[in-house]
Amino acid sequence: MKLLEDRIMAEGRFLPPEIIKVDSFLNHQIDPILMEEMGKEFYRLFADAGVTKVLTIEASGIAMALEAARCFRVPMVFAKKSKTRNISGDVWTAPVFSFTHQTMNNITISKQYLNRGDKVLVIDDFLANGEALRGLISVCEQAGAEVVGCGVAIEKYFQPGGHELREKGYRVEALASIESMNAETGEVVFHH
Amino acid sequence: MKLLEDRIMAEGRFLPPEIIKVDSFLNHQIDPILMEEMGKEFYRLFADAGVTKVLTIEASGIAMALEAARCFRVPMVFAKKSKTRNISGDVWTAPVFSFTHQTMNNITISKQYLNRGDKVLVIDDFLANGEALRGLISVCEQAGAEVVGCGVAIEKYFQPGGHELREKGYRVEALASIESMNAETGEVVFHH
Repeated sequence: MKLLEDRIMAEGRFLPPEIIKVDSFLNHQIDPILMEEMGKEFYRLFADAGVTKVLTIEASGIAMALEAARCFRVPMVFAKKSKTRNISGDVWTAPVFSFTHQTMNNITISKQYLNRGDKVLVIDDFLANGEALRGLISVCEQAGAEVVGCGVAIEKYFQPGGHELREKGYRVEALASIESMNAETGEVVFHH
Repeated sequence: MKLLEDRIMAEGRFLPPEIIKVDSFLNHQIDPILMEEMGKEFYRLFADAGVTKVLTIEASGIAMALEAARCFRVPMVFAKKSKTRNISGDVWTAPVFSFTHQTMNNITISKQYLNRGDKVLVIDDFLANGEALRGLISVCEQAGAEVVGCGVAIEKYFQPGGHELREKGYRVEALASIESMNAETGEVVFHH
């Protein structure tokens, strides 16, 4: 998606070893017009998949997942990173390691909101090692829901997460896929 | 906002002592069409306020804040609940007590994304004791930004947060304001 690639080149910062910071428009300050366009693109990519629910994880995935769900006119559910008092009853849960926080979290989803028969589009902001998507896929499997696709804003194509998921048969689409980056020079090559 | 009041009555669950659970459409599973309508309503209420930025706190405020920001065509910024590795440099911070989690968190906002001259609409899902809004107002004051309004989805009008903020001169608008509730009978009276 050229709009997102252009924005990454204009505002992204590339830090050693392989960190891409996009918090001016994607995951701290958020550009709602860009989110709207990204939502439309996820819809275009998965329009034939029979999506009944969009699933993401708090917090950075929520904005783009909401805009996708708005296009599909289906509910969006976000997994929570720790079990809170106000999620009552039974939950689906899976462990997810966060490289950002260097912590292991349990993600949880109330069983009420993910069911057998759901056709789920899983969305997240970044795909690198695939930890978050694997956790979200795990809760779908526990629920007996079908994962019809995975959509991410930015894939680090030089890391293994996306490749592993595709090898397992999942349909994974990235709106911007980074083939290589040089944090020293700021040089970025997109995979198309 | 009748649409939201109707939804609260249809799907909300009321638990002792004074808990309102709306996680089927507002803060776990999210109805994107309702969010869109709520965003439009926030826009209608604060259209004259010169809003340059919408500010909220992760995670439940993000969806409605995004939809409001999309109407205003301004950036949305969400405060994070703990300082993470990937927020670099200086941050504005304030302590916020979470009744839901019974923990004290620091909320943080990168200084890059909240500045003197910003006219900020602060948005959150619930207003009860006002802890989250006070924290968000505090970071705006630290930044020299002007809080032009506070918008919440649901105010517990029988709790002190909203009254205290209005006494201090803040413009506070709730899309649904609950005057009283009886968790035993499910009886709810809205304040208009």
